[in-house]
This record gives sequence, C-alpha cells and structure tokens, in this order.
Amino acid sequence: MTPQEYAAVHEAEHLEMLKRLVAQRSISPTGEGITECAALLRGMMEEAGVAVEVLETPGWPILYGAINTGAPFTLLIYGHYDVQPPEPLDLWESPPFEPTVRNGRLYGRGTGDNKGQLLANLLAIRAYTRTETPLPVNVKFCFEGEEESSSLHLPWAVAKYQDKLQADLVYTADGPQHPSGAPTVLLGVRGIQYVEINAYGAAKDNHSGNKGGAVPNPAWALVHLLAAMKGQDGRVTIPGFYDNIRPPSAYDRMLLSRLPFDAADAAAAASMDQLEMDGAEYYARTLLEPTLNVAGFTSGYGGPGSKTIIPAKANVKIDMRLVVDQDPDDIFRKFKAFVEAFPAPSGIRLEVRDLHGMAPSRTPGDRPEPQAVIRAVGRAYGQEPVVMPSLGGSLPDYVWTRILKAPSLIVPYANPDEDNHAPNENIALDCFYNGIRCTIEVLSELRKLAG
Amino acid sequence: MTPQEYAAVHEAEHLEMLKRLVAQRSISPTGEGITECAALLRGMMEEAGVAVEVLETPGWPILYGAINTGAPFTLLIYGHYDVQPPEPLDLWESPPFEPTVRNGRLYGRGTGDNKGQLLANLLAIRAYTRTETPLPVNVKFCFEGEEESSSLHLPWAVAKYQDKLQADLVYTADGPQHPSGAPTVLLGVRGIQYVEINAYGAAKDNHSGNKGGAVPNPAWALVHLLAAMKGQDGRVTIPGFYDNIRPPSAYDRMLLSRLPFDAADAAAAASMDQLEMDGAEYYARTLLEPTLNVAGFTSGYGGPGSKTIIPAKANVKIDMRLVVDQDPDDIFRKFKAFVEAFPAPSGIRLEVRDLHGMAPSRTPGDRPEPQAVIRAVGRAYGQEPVVMPSLGGSLPDYVWTRILKAPSLIVPYANPDEDNHAPNENIALDCFYNGIRCTIEVLSELRKLAG
Repeated sequence: MTPQEYAAVHEAEHLEMLKRLVAQRSISPTGEGITECAALLRGMMEEAGVAVEVLETPGWPILYGAINTGAPFTLLIYGHYDVQPPEPLDLWESPPFEPTVRNGRLYGRGTGDNKGQLLANLLAIRAYTRTETPLPVNVKFCFEGEEESSSLHLPWAVAKYQDKLQADLVYTADGPQHPSGAPTVLLGVRGIQYVEINAYGAAKDNHSGNKGGAVPNPAWALVHLLAAMKGQDGRVTIPGFYDNIRPPSAYDRMLLSRLPFDAADAAAAASMDQLEMDGAEYYARTLLEPTLNVAGFTSGYGGPGSKTIIPAKANVKIDMRLVVDQDPDDIFRKFKAFVEAFPAPSGIRLEVRDLHGMAPSRTPGDRPEPQAVIRAVGRAYGQEPVVMPSLGGSLPDYVWTRILKAPSLIVPYANPDEDNHAPNENIALDCFYNGIRCTIEVLSELRKLAG
Repeated sequence: MTPQEYAAVHEAEHLEMLKRLVAQRSISPTGEGITECAALLRGMMEEAGVAVEVLETPGWPILYGAINTGAPFTLLIYGHYDVQPPEPLDLWESPPFEPTVRNGRLYGRGTGDNKGQLLANLLAIRAYTRTETPLPVNVKFCFEGEEESSSLHLPWAVAKYQDKLQADLVYTADGPQHPSGAPTVLLGVRGIQYVEINAYGAAKDNHSGNKGGAVPNPAWALVHLLAAMKGQDGRVTIPGFYDNIRPPSAYDRMLLSRLPFDAADAAAAASMDQLEMDGAEYYARTLLEPTLNVAGFTSGYGGPGSKTIIPAKANVKIDMRLVVDQDPDDIFRKFKAFVEAFPAPSGIRLEVRDLHGMAPSRTPGDRPEPQAVIRAVGRAYGQEPVVMPSLGGSLPDYVWTRILKAPSLIVPYANPDEDNHAPNENIALDCFYNGIRCTIEVLSELRKLAG
C-alpha cells in the first residue's frame, strides 16, 4: 500500500485524531492546557515513528522531532499547537473545544489554525511509516506553543537550536488558501516596523481663543512632520528608507502577472467603489513594495460638534510594511533620526517609540526547492497552484530565511473561510484530507532533490 | 445727594435686589424660570424709572428699556438675564439659587454672569432717577435671555429692531476683570470660523498588511491637505485668507506695549515651561492676528499599543480666530474652495462642513467714546484701567459694530475668579458696588460728548 492509498482508507481515523487534538485546549495567552496538549501531540508524533525532544524556551516549549533516513536533504516542518482564546463563547454554534462535524467541516478552536494543518503534515509522515515506505528525505518537526502569542521566543529558539534545526527547506502549512479555493504557495511575507510618535505641547489643553497664536499646537507639528516624511506622490523621504530593497526578479514579475485579479472583486474586498490599478500594480504594491501607513492619528477633540482647544498632545501610530532586504531595526533608526532632525516648533517635544518589528522574508521562487513544491502541490490538487511571491502581511518567516538561513515556503491547507481567530473556526474535511495528500506528494517530489 | 452718594448709602438694598434676581432661576438652555425672571427684571427696570418694552424673538424675549432725556447722545446698555445650568449640584457649597454671602462675596448661579453686572448698570441709572439727578445722556437697555444659548437670536433681533436700538455707544459689563484685579476695558473680540473636514476612504478599515499600498489612506490625505494649508512658519496659504485684515493702528500698538506681561506668568497660565516671546508679540498674536488651529484630528486607532489598519475615515476640527475685517462667511468660502481644489488621492472623498461662525469686532480706542469711558473707569476705580484692543476669544460683539454700526465697549465688573459657568459662581461685593459706581461715572463722563 502506498502512503497515498493509506491516507485514502484511513480518513476516519485521521479525523478522530484531529478531534482529540482539538478537544485538548492549548491557549497560549493564558497557558490553559498547553502542557497537556504538548504531551498529547508528543504521543502522536512518537506513535508516527518520530523521535521527539522537548526544546525548552523562556516560554512554552517547542516539540522538536526528527526522522533521519540518511538522505542528503532535510525538510523542516513548522507548525504550532497553541490556539487563540475562544471568546466570545456565545457566538459559537457548538462549543469550541467539542469538535463537531457539520456540513462537511470540523468546527472547533484550532481546527484550521493550526492543529488541522500541523496534523496533516504529521499524518503524511505517518502514512509513510505505517506503510513502511522509506521517507524520501530526512524530516524534522518544529511545533511551537507560542504562535498565538506573537511567537515570542521563536527567534530566540531558532538561534539557540539552529544546529539541531538545520534543514534544506522549511515547510509551513498555515493560513487559508487563495479566496478562489485554489491551492496556494507563498514564497514570503512583508515585514513590519511599528512606531508611535507622541508630540507634547503645553501640559493641558488651552483655550484656542485666549491662547491661540501663542501656544504651539502638537497636532500641527505632527502634520508637518508627517508631510515631510512622505510626499503626496506616496514616496517616503526618510533618507535611506529604500536602501537594501531587493527589486522583483523576472520570475517574481512573472508570478505577479499570473495572479488572479479582478479589479471589481479587489475593490469589493477592500470596501471600495473602485481601485484604479491593474493586477500587476496591485500585487506589486501590496506584496513587494514597502509602505508607511498612518494607522491612527489622535489629537484633541473628535466628538460631535465643536470644541475650541489647542490640544496638549498628539499621537500618531505608524506601521511600515517592509520588503526584503529592509531590516526593521535599521528602518527604525532611520525613522527616529528623521524625527529627531525635524525642526519642531519651540515648545513642542517629539517622542518616538519602537512598538515592535518583524523582518521581511522571501524565498526566490525559481530555486529548485520551491519549484519542486509547486509541482507537487499542483499534482496533489490536480490544479495549478496560485504562487504568491509574498504575503502582504507579516509572519515570523524570517526566523527560517534570516536566522536558519534556509529557504522557506508556506502552503496553506485551510479553506478561505476557516474563520481562524473567530467564533466557529473550522476546517473543511476535504482540506484536511487534501493536506495530508499534499504533504505526501511534496515528500515524494523532494526525493528528486535528494538524489 | 449725588448718585454716587446714593449708591454708597444703599449698598444693603442693592445687595437685596441682586439676591432677589439671582434667586429667580432663568436657565436658557432648558427655559426654566426664564419668563418669571424676565417679569422680575422688568419690574426692577420700571421701578428704576425705565420705560420697558418686550421685544419678541423666535426664542426668549429681549427686555428693551429706554430713558429719553432729549440729549444728543444715546448709550445702549447690553446684558443678559439668563444663566448657565447649575450642574454639577453636589459641588456647590451653598445651593445655586439660594444666594449666600460668604467672605465678602455673593455666591449663586448668575451672580457674576451676568445678573450682578447687569444690575450694577441698572442700579447706576436708578441712582440718578432716585436722586432726581438728570441723566447726562439718553439710556437704552437691551437685556437678552439667550446669551447662555449662544445668543441664538440676538443678530436677528438687532437687525430687526435696529431703529429702536440705535445708539452712539454700546456698553457691556460682562466677564472677569484682568487677572491682576485692575479695572479693564475691552475694545473688541476676535471672531471665529469653525470647520470640520471629513476624509472618507474605503467603507471600512482595511488590514494594513493585506491591502497596504493599494487602498488610499484618508489620514494621509488630511495630513497633506493641512500641510498645504498652513506652512511650518505658521503662514496660512489659503488664497485671500489675510485679505481685509485691518493692521493694528499706532494706538493699538501703544495699547499692546502697555499691557501687563510677565513671560513666566503667561507660560504658567498656559501650562508651558516657557513662552519664547515678549509681551508685544504675545498680545499681537493672541489678540490682533488670526489663527488656523487644529482643535482635533481623529483617525484610526488611538489606544494603547498597536493596531494595523488603514483607517476608513479621518476627521479634523479646525477653528480659525478672525480679526477685523475678516468675515466668517467669506473665510469659509475661501477655505472650502481651497479644499475643493486640493488634489486628493483617487478613492478619497473630502467633505467640508461649516460648524459655526461669528464675526470679529473692534472699536478703535482713540475715538472720543472709548476715551471718555477709559477716563471714567480710571476715575471710578482710582486706577488706570488695563485697556485691551481685543479679547483673544469670541463674543457676539459684532452685532453692535457691524449690524447696529455703533462703537462698542466691554467693561467687566466681576472679580477674575468669579467662576462663571462653574460651581460656586460668585461676585465679590466690592466688585458689585464698584460696578455701580463705575457706570455712574461713565454716564457722567459721557455728558461731555453730549454737549
């Protein structure tokens, strides 16, 4: 029996295993059930023939596993066994930790994010070991328990255990597939640097009539600072902001041109009347170019009607999406230097705060490893995958590409409406079973690189 | 007996009359007691020898009164018999409508604003009529009942009844004296034009990662609009904004140079560490120059930490303080035209709203009427008054200078800590009695203009 045949006849058993895993709470922000879930998952890994080791971190432990076949190629599979808190509970149609099948989907917290996808990977390995089919490559697992707490210690752990984790390719099944339901391969993510600027004027709001003209206004100071930082043309004027940006390769541009795009759909998804750009521009802007976005500007009075004050304070929240090879620390230094060099009016004090940062990550899609995975995914689903050179959003993918220095791919297995982080989170049973098949196919295809 | 002698020996009686007036509620925003208070005041006016007529308005009535002496000069005395709501009641040390003397002050809602000052004017006239001293000039009264409701129908009424109200000088006793406690004469006020701009982007907040680069940001649109509207040098760039501004006269500049100014005190009053300007600049900026002030800027997330959104909407509240002869309607038209001509990014809609406006007003201080009043005030208090060419704030003084086309002066009688609009509103008894003496002296001095 081949691994694929094994997977096909053991769907009921696989579903029962997923139910057991989902039924075990593992809420990383509160710690509820984390230890028990790690023990349960460890048992499943060992039962699949994986040698497991617990890697301690300053936070929740990482389950490290390995099957060494002696092949010259090693695949590292990343996933996370922790889940989001299930609240608000009253919006769940069935209890979040009582996994329930309805309409061809399994409902429960963690079904899609990430237990169903993590388990699909493990069950693919198990299909090899149960059928005594030799694994084509060495396989390692890194299942962390803090992803829903911003992967707080993952960079630390990858740096500390990098010899153990060493791999030729990192493979993550997480997130939803493309909205069309097509199989999806993601080659990277944008990074982020989040900053906040506070502008302080007088110690209290002043009457705009009595003091207007004499007391400086921190909102005006931020307006002029921001306008100096980015032009109306959208170009960021912070010196060095665009340094180190890796221009899209010919392959990236080819990928962009092939991504499905419907201007009306894209506008509707953003709740816009229309978006005046074509697909190539839309994807270049949202996937491969950096941004400097005002996520919030708060100063003075914002209620109905009028209030006549010179505000004491103004705050702006800014997130910058970064692309390879921008570095969040470097960008923060440049941002801060720009603000500090800005000639704020007398009586205004500007304060810049680094709220958080995460490096971008991108694996060139024309390398042999991505090409093998793209072929395998296409074969597993019987459909050409949507290959995105990057996500617009930010995930800690850089721990693989920048710390471990390995190529990294994200292949989402969940349905587009998995409702991760929301009530009634679910995974379509087909997506779960197809995920197992996909990983089996990927392992099989990687054999060619191990030869 | 002279009017001044009469006032000196009737202080107890005058205080009883003020108590009666304060005890009668007259809350214009709710209407409570307004009619009863108007009747009470009308009785007091008639008892003082004033012929009273009720001028109907679409709101609360105006009490118009006149004593015609046949003199060639007419003084119109303006005041208001309505009061602010007394809430919060639990902070009053004695009930707001049970006027109580403590520490040389009368406490109660309306004691300072404006019943004590209005009555001081009336009692000065009464001192003339009781002593059968001929009034040196014709006297008219305009006591309105909507001042604490933004004098909603005063412009309408002054326009409608302007033949009846016609005067050579309008005289208002309202507000607190200069913080030093010196007698004070105000020659005008700045006007105001309050506008709001809403910038609308997508119909909902968008994820700054998934959509960042493609979806326009209304906060950025307002930043660029505002930066284009006023430079870092503080200069407003709206075409025509500075048209029609009457430059300070030599007399105005002399007044500014004589105003008491202590940089440390001015900074402390504004809760600033320091103010880097001298008195002449401070007063020129706060009294005689216009402003374009951001009173509020609200967009996106302003809470603790971070949120990664492209806001759907941004709002800015702007108050412009205007100086003679800027006109609020004209300024609004220019403001709106500037916004409409601004090249907002595709997908951003800008909306300008006129929230309210009030024209500026200023009476040249070197005219004979202000000069007479300044002399009289100095004599009444035995101290040179502080003469301010304008207030920084806004009052509907323009109804006299622009609609009635008469010079207008404001001479505050209340102590600087009258706490008007607040709990424990009060008027120092000295201020009340001095106010009566002051009006008697002003009438006497105006005789010279009636000659």
